[in-house]
Parts: sequence; C-alpha cells; structure tokens
Amino acid sequence: MSKEIQAYVAQHEQDFFEGLCDLLRRPTVSTDPQYRGELESCAAYLAEFGREKLGFTTRVVPTAGHPCVIMHSEDVPGAARVLLYGHYDVQPAEDVELWRRPPFEPYLESCDGKEHPEKVSAGGQGLVIRGRGTCDDKGQFWAWLCALRTLRETRGQMPVNITVLLEGEEEIGSLNLPRVLEEHREELGVDVAIVSDTGTAVKYIPTMHYALRGLISFEIALRTAAQDLHSGVHGGVSPNAAVELANIIAKLHDSAGRVVIPGFYDGVRAIEPWEKEALAAVPFDEEEYARGFATTLRGEAGFSTNERRWFRPTLECNGMSGGYTGPGAKTIVPAAASAKFSARLVADQDPAHIMECVQRWFSANCPEWVQLDFVAGELCRPYLLEKSGVGAQLFAVAEAALREGFQREPLLCRNGGAIGIVAEFSRVLGVPTLLLGLGSPDDAIHGPNEKLELANFYSGIRMGADLLERLAQQNK
Amino acid sequence: MSKEIQAYVAQHEQDFFEGLCDLLRRPTVSTDPQYRGELESCAAYLAEFGREKLGFTTRVVPTAGHPCVIMHSEDVPGAARVLLYGHYDVQPAEDVELWRRPPFEPYLESCDGKEHPEKVSAGGQGLVIRGRGTCDDKGQFWAWLCALRTLRETRGQMPVNITVLLEGEEEIGSLNLPRVLEEHREELGVDVAIVSDTGTAVKYIPTMHYALRGLISFEIALRTAAQDLHSGVHGGVSPNAAVELANIIAKLHDSAGRVVIPGFYDGVRAIEPWEKEALAAVPFDEEEYARGFATTLRGEAGFSTNERRWFRPTLECNGMSGGYTGPGAKTIVPAAASAKFSARLVADQDPAHIMECVQRWFSANCPEWVQLDFVAGELCRPYLLEKSGVGAQLFAVAEAALREGFQREPLLCRNGGAIGIVAEFSRVLGVPTLLLGLGSPDDAIHGPNEKLELANFYSGIRMGADLLERLAQQNK
Repeated sequence: MSKEIQAYVAQHEQDFFEGLCDLLRRPTVSTDPQYRGELESCAAYLAEFGREKLGFTTRVVPTAGHPCVIMHSEDVPGAARVLLYGHYDVQPAEDVELWRRPPFEPYLESCDGKEHPEKVSAGGQGLVIRGRGTCDDKGQFWAWLCALRTLRETRGQMPVNITVLLEGEEEIGSLNLPRVLEEHREELGVDVAIVSDTGTAVKYIPTMHYALRGLISFEIALRTAAQDLHSGVHGGVSPNAAVELANIIAKLHDSAGRVVIPGFYDGVRAIEPWEKEALAAVPFDEEEYARGFATTLRGEAGFSTNERRWFRPTLECNGMSGGYTGPGAKTIVPAAASAKFSARLVADQDPAHIMECVQRWFSANCPEWVQLDFVAGELCRPYLLEKSGVGAQLFAVAEAALREGFQREPLLCRNGGAIGIVAEFSRVLGVPTLLLGLGSPDDAIHGPNEKLELANFYSGIRMGADLLERLAQQNK
Repeated sequence: MSKEIQAYVAQHEQDFFEGLCDLLRRPTVSTDPQYRGELESCAAYLAEFGREKLGFTTRVVPTAGHPCVIMHSEDVPGAARVLLYGHYDVQPAEDVELWRRPPFEPYLESCDGKEHPEKVSAGGQGLVIRGRGTCDDKGQFWAWLCALRTLRETRGQMPVNITVLLEGEEEIGSLNLPRVLEEHREELGVDVAIVSDTGTAVKYIPTMHYALRGLISFEIALRTAAQDLHSGVHGGVSPNAAVELANIIAKLHDSAGRVVIPGFYDGVRAIEPWEKEALAAVPFDEEEYARGFATTLRGEAGFSTNERRWFRPTLECNGMSGGYTGPGAKTIVPAAASAKFSARLVADQDPAHIMECVQRWFSANCPEWVQLDFVAGELCRPYLLEKSGVGAQLFAVAEAALREGFQREPLLCRNGGAIGIVAEFSRVLGVPTLLLGLGSPDDAIHGPNEKLELANFYSGIRMGADLLERLAQQNK
C-alpha cells in the first residue's frame, strides 16, 4: 500500500470518525413510517457528500419505498468498473431501555467498556464506536466513502470507474432494489460488485467470504377433520393433526442427521482441498462456540461444525403450531396444524429443483387420512466466486488488499447466510461480488448497544483504497 | 308409572314449559362479570321456587364466586337420601349474529324448523325449544324441579329425602363447588346423586351413562439453546427444539395406535360380556359419524370406534408450538418448543399413577441435549357405577324409570367425557352418581341456537318422578 494513503488515513482519523457520527445521528429506521423524512434527508445528504467531497455525479433515485442514491466517478477510459454497495437504513432501536446510551447518539468506548474517550487515538486500536448502524451498515459503507475521499485527495482522481449504490430498504427486505437494478441495468453494468455488510469470521482477522448459502422456504398446513374435536367425546378415534405433523417432521432427518428427502443433496459441490486448508486456518473453539448459546452441537454425521455451517445444505423447521396454545388446558383433538421450513443450499444446488424434491417428498409422506397444503416460498440461489479462472484475479486482489489494510493474513471462508442482493447482482447484472465485511462476530447487529471495532473501520478504509488501486493495476 | 303422575304431567305441559321459559329469559352467563346480578337474582328466584312451590327449606349459599342454592324436602324418616344436582349458569351467547332469534328469548320450533307454534301440544312430540341454556342445563334441572312439583301435587309429599344443589359456576369450572361440598359434607350426605347434564347416546333413545372417563393433563417445554439461532449462521449445528418436540410426540404411539408409555394401560378394566351386549345395542353408523367431521376414523388396533371412545384410555396432544408462527418466514433454528397433552383414563385407572408413568417416560425419552420441563396439570379420576353389588339396585331403578319416562328401552353406555362434579361427589361425599341426560347429540350446547327436544323434557319429568318413587320402594 502506498505511503500517501497510509499517511492520509492516519491524519484524518478524527475527520472520518466525526463524519461517521454525523451519519449515525440520523435515525434512518426503514421499517417505521415516522422516519420516512429522515431517510429522504439522509439520501440527499449522501448524494451531496458524493458531489461535494468526491466530485461524483450523484442523484437520488426514488422507489416505491425509500430512495436509492446512485453516484458515478468521472470516466476513466479502459479502467475496471466497480460497484460499491451499502445501505443507509438501519434496524429499529425501540428497545431503548436496553441501550446504555441513546441509540442515535454515537460514542467511543474502550474495549473493556470502562473508558469513554472523546477523541480517536492510535488508529482506533482498543476502541469501539457504539450506536445503531455502526456496524450494519453505516460504519462499513462510510469506510468505503472515506477510501474514495482518500484516493481523491491523494491521487486527484479515482483509479477505476466507481459506481456507488446506496439503498434505504435493506432491513425491510430490499423489496424495490431488484427493480432499480433492472431499470438501470446499463448504468449499473460493472465488472465486479463489492459489498461490506458482513463481518470477519473471527474477531480481528480480516476475512474474504467467497461463497454464500442459498435458501428455499415453504410452509405446510395439515388438516385431519372439519374442526377441532372434543377429546372426551371423540378422543381416540380421529387423527390428531398435531401428532400427524410431528410424525412428518420427525421423519425428515435420519439418525445420522442427514435429510432423507431424495434429491436434497443434488448438486452439492465437494469441498476442494484448498478449501479444507483454508478452513483449517480458521481459529475456532468448538466448546466456546457451543457455550455461547448454551447448546449442544449436533448435525450431519461426517462433517465438522464449520463444514455443517458453511459447506452443507440444511433443512430446518423454523416454527410449527397446532391445536390450542393459549394459557391453561383445552381438551381437544386438533384438526389443523402447520409448520414453516427453510433449507439452506450450497453451490451448485438449484433452489427450484430442491423445492420440487421437497414438495414431492411431503406429498408422498403425508398419510391418506391427512389433507396437505404445501405453499412454496422464497427461492435464493447459492453464490460462489470461483477461485480459478476469472475469479482468480479477484481472489488475489482481495486477499492482498485485506492483508495490507488489516496488516494481518486474511481468512478465506464460505458464509452460511444468504444475501439477497448478491444473488440479485449475479442474476440481474451478471456480476461477481466481493464480500469484505468489517464487522465482528460480537457486534450485536440488530440488537441493543450495536458497535463497530474502530480499528476495523480504519483498516477498512486502507483496504478499500488499496483494493481499488490494485484493481486498476490488474486491468492494465 | 302411576296414572296420577302421567295425568298431572300431561295437564301441566304448558305450565312447565312457561316456567322453563321464565328461567331461560335470565341471562345467567357466569363468565361475564356484567351478569353477576343476574346470577344472584336467579339463585334467589330458584330458592323462592323451592320454598313456595315445593315446600322445601331453601337457602342461597354464597361462595367466592356465584352462589349455590341448597334445598331440602321435609324429613321422611328411613327413606333414601337423594341429591339432585343442576347448574343455573350458562355459556356466553355473544355470537348473537349467529342466532336466528335472541339467545335469551326462548321459542318453540317444529323439528324441521319451519313452524313456530305458540303453545305446546302432543307432549312436545316433534317440537324443540330453542335458547341459551335449554339443554345445558336449565331445561334438564327444571325437568327435575317439575318432577318434584308433580310428586308434591299428586302425593302431598316427597317419596324420599331430597336435597337439591344448584350451582352457578359449572361453565367456568365449578371452582367453588368442592369447597361447598366439603363445608356442607354432613348436610349433603346422601345415598345417591343424580345429574342430568348430559345427553342420550343416540337421539330419542334414553340413556343411562354408568361410567365416565377420567383425565390427566400436562404440558412439556423443551429448550435446546439460550435463544433462537440464525439458521444461516448456525443452521445445521444446533438441535432444533421444534424438531426435537416432533421427535418425542411422534414416538408416543406405535404403528397400531397404542400408547407406548410403560404403565399407561395399568388398571384398565376389561370390557365385560354384558357391556359388549349393551354396546351392540347402540345404533351407530360409523360412516355417517366420520362424515359429520369430515375425518377418517383411526385409533387403537383391536377396538371398535365406540370402544375407543368409551372404554379405552387415550393420549392426545391438544396443542403444540415452537419457533416462529407469525406471518411470512423467519429463518431461525427454534430454541424452545412446547406442547399440551391430556390423557383420557378409564375405570379403574389411577390418575396419579398414570401421571407418574407419563412423566417418567418423557424424562427417559428426552435426549440429553434437550432441556425438558414437565408441568403436571389436572387429575380427574374415572367414574364407574358397578352393575353388581350396591350398584345393581341403582341400575335396575334407573333403567326402569328411563323405560317408563321415555316409553322406550334405554341404552346402557359408558361416556367418554369427564365430569368433574361426579368425581367430586365420589371423592368428597363418597356417593355414586346416576347420569340421566335429557339432551340430544345435536343440541348445539355451547353453540348458537342451542335447543332441547321438548319430548325429552316431558319424558324427563315423568322419568324423574317415577325414579324417586322407585327409590322409595327399594328402600322399604
């Protein structure tokens, strides 16, 4: 990494921190209609920042919900085209009594929570910034805007063609983003997308997530009679919908923890030797992990805990109910019961095919005395950036930039979650995504006292500037 | 039956009907505090009726809830002592839009619902009376008060020592009745109790129910982790509480529909030859019965549908829930799930023993990675009147009175339900109970447009007077 970049970031620590605080003070809660004006004003503020501080052409794009901000750098002919994505909306913080300070009044804290300095020092080492949105996602995309500002101030222009896309509906499902992508497909056409909206796999160790799990969701509803029956008058003679549901759910996995549905594992890519090595490099204390949730680890036989989390498809019952669930007793034979399920899929599984297999199995395994209603829900494709071929360059650039920015050897990990926007970037724009999260596993996103490790924020700025310069080099 | 009784009942059909209507017009909804005054006024009204029309000593006994009415006939030395039980409270009727006429304005209707005569004719044949409480229980205990009136007017005095106990909290669980029984144990000491608060097993065919099922209820709560886990981050490695609950529920019955819990069938009395004969005499169309609930009949192998309903213990899951059950999807691994159960028990099972067996089984069958919380609930003993020994006389008297009152051969049936007061009469007063219901299976008790077959009402009056006279004869 260039000395100019390092120096500029070091000199502007306080500026960058204060800019982030200005952004964090805006209560941009997308789910709550009362903050609608705050989201609009925040979008305008960000557009103005891009125009004034980065020299970008910027505009606010209205949607059926909260607006998007789109910015473009000055054209750099022949250079790579890079899309930087972030979201300026945040989760609600109504559980204000659980926050040690008001959620929209960001503040510094020492790692042990004892000191509260007023100014940043030592590159943020040993400090966290607390407040709603610090990690998810204002702190992360603001690091990218600071990286762009650093490049402008040190280089005079961007090394590559930058498009910034900031949305205001990520916390409510990005409902309008696919349409924005489709309507601006040309304008948003790039070579690579970059998303910093995740975390490092292990605290303080930079991580490149090269794969995401996909997802299908569905619900089933069972009926065994026209109405709940009095268990005294009719108990013992009619099927019990709750028991029938239990019977079906109990059959889904075998004793080895494998899903018994034929075809459920179709398309699962074997774990490659380099992935085994990368996985072995991830520090992981299984006992500590289990203790954290007061749980006992269980799962598919033949795979380690992190293989189960990141490399294997799973099928979970997310909820179920049947019969009477209020206070006290009600002596009925339930006539109806229902359950919600989701399956996590991995590369190279096809969600539509898995949904078919699942639906076929439920139909085949529902007794003839039970009426089954199967409702298919979401389909989200798994994502994987190939390490060979076109992906090889991206892997190399990202690893180098993470190493430089954080001054530590990065981890290469798959991620167990699904990120809808990454699937959309792939589907609509046909573009690979680099997932370079600045969060930590203990950042309490969506919870009270959300925080961001301040060192990660500055490392992210350096990593971002370095990565864009490396992309420029590679394209030459 | 004596001609005098028959004649008196025939001559006073209209009177008895109008007296019932007066009672039905009182909205004595015990669960709704706004009707508190109505219940008090109804209790006073009934006490006055007993004093004025029957010549009984009567009083209203306050409780922590709604009052009881206790009445005693003049002492008949050496004669049997009989307790007549009824309840003057009714279920709510707030679903007034589902009633064809206001629920507390009783009216006559022809069986096909087409004609609405103003006066009773032909002993009520082909007529029903509609209104809240017609069957449950005002119409039934009023028939007994009319029988007492008939005896007084035709005989001048009661043939046996009568105690009438009318409560105002049956529809809310008879919470204060056990205390009333305990505090008036001496005063309520009798040879036999009579309850008309059930129905005939088959429409128009008088029925003596000589047994009731008992009941235990319990709840289980399972926990597999400190909190619900994100299925992307932690899916596939932690036990799923909903699935663990399903696994346990699915194990409760074997493929033959038998409960697998060791000891669950302990104490079950074999079906006696005379019971098999009595059961064979009950007209029952299995297909029509199943069609009525749009269900497929299932149950314990080796037993007929009515054997399953009346002679066999059952274990039902009354409700269960776990994880997310709201609208849409939520991709969690549920950490907690719970279920409610009740078991119907039969003579001579001991509820406390069965509860122990059940609790032991759940503990033994809960995997070590699941935290189980077992909460025992209600215990209600099964009831059975012995047909040999002391019960033989009661059987003979009841059968003869039913035959005379209804002019039709009665059925002898067990009943699948549990009636708490019968268990209490047995437990506190040590007294057997005759269950002589006047309702019909289609009376819609607790529902809109509740009705009573008027012929059953008059048959009940004749049966009641005849039965008391027979008890007097037997004691001589």
